[in-house]
Amino acid sequence: MTVPGNLFILSAPSGAGKSSLISALLKLASPRPLQVSVSTTTRDPRPGEVNGQHYHFVAKAEFEKQIKQNHFYEYAEVFGNYYGTSEKAIDDQLAQGIDVFLDIDWQGAQQVRLKKPEVTTIFIAPPSKAELESRLKGRGQDSDEVIAGRMAQAQSECSHYQEFDYIIVNDDFDQAVDDLKTIVNNQRLKRDQQIAKHQAMFNDLIAD
Amino acid sequence: MTVPGNLFILSAPSGAGKSSLISALLKLASPRPLQVSVSTTTRDPRPGEVNGQHYHFVAKAEFEKQIKQNHFYEYAEVFGNYYGTSEKAIDDQLAQGIDVFLDIDWQGAQQVRLKKPEVTTIFIAPPSKAELESRLKGRGQDSDEVIAGRMAQAQSECSHYQEFDYIIVNDDFDQAVDDLKTIVNNQRLKRDQQIAKHQAMFNDLIAD
Repeated sequence: MTVPGNLFILSAPSGAGKSSLISALLKLASPRPLQVSVSTTTRDPRPGEVNGQHYHFVAKAEFEKQIKQNHFYEYAEVFGNYYGTSEKAIDDQLAQGIDVFLDIDWQGAQQVRLKKPEVTTIFIAPPSKAELESRLKGRGQDSDEVIAGRMAQAQSECSHYQEFDYIIVNDDFDQAVDDLKTIVNNQRLKRDQQIAKHQAMFNDLIAD
Repeated sequence: MTVPGNLFILSAPSGAGKSSLISALLKLASPRPLQVSVSTTTRDPRPGEVNGQHYHFVAKAEFEKQIKQNHFYEYAEVFGNYYGTSEKAIDDQLAQGIDVFLDIDWQGAQQVRLKKPEVTTIFIAPPSKAELESRLKGRGQDSDEVIAGRMAQAQSECSHYQEFDYIIVNDDFDQAVDDLKTIVNNQRLKRDQQIAKHQAMFNDLIAD
């Protein structure tokens, strides 16, 4: 029997280093497969983006049909474009024993939690406000107004930190990768998953 | 503010390798202190045992007084001697930010869980019945009857595996140490503990 994979949500403000953390996690030697979910969107592909790899690109009418069919764990409309997480695609991956990561914001996390309460939600926080501001300033080519807008957006995302199961403070990057690995591995050591994996052994162990 | 430590229970049948696991865990470089709780007992010290280090040795009348004073998280009588875990001693260690391990059986675990529902309980399982039997045979100097008695006792302990939060199957020792470390570190990444540790940072992060 394949033990089902676990579903994780990773949320973070811009500047918290989420993308680098996910890349590092996917490169770790792991006893089991890990995948980041590919979202569905109605926005146009950017140069270099591959359908099915970066996003599933669909027409707006198709997306709205899928909404009506209750096709999504979560979806949102941002600047006139839809973005969503397909329920069936995720469930298929989990059934194959794959741990799946959703890279979505706190609003998406709320929607997924309602449909799948066993999801494990993780918030990646920057180590301080000063450090966040410095990261958002980037290469210094943006106006103060643009940076202030980014900062307000990041702070708004941060204000939901109390809604997540876990918090990783991304101060030292290697430590943050270790922390993420700890949370992922910990799920597989929980009673129900270990019993599913070792049921025959336990039956034998306590038999006369 | 000191973030309180976490309380863990480690239970296992004889032959599962619990003592070696605990020794290895205590030797790991850890960002925070870990201690194994010292039990109180009314049995006589054996040669080499130090009061306050291996056990707190007390007279039977004193132990019974402490029972009446609701002094223990859990206690049991085994072959006419009492063994117990002092509530105040544990709480003092936790308040200092120390992670505390209780090395007790499933009955003790049940008692502690009633008084302290936030305890994290871990069951260490042998990798198979055959391996358990082989470990319990030891150096081959015991009668079949003695070995059968040990095996029945171990199987009785194993039959409670479903009552624990986590299960570690001690097949590969280094992996089992890693698993134990994962569970211990995971607790400190949970929302409430991270918020307690980083409250000033979060307040600053979301302030205007």
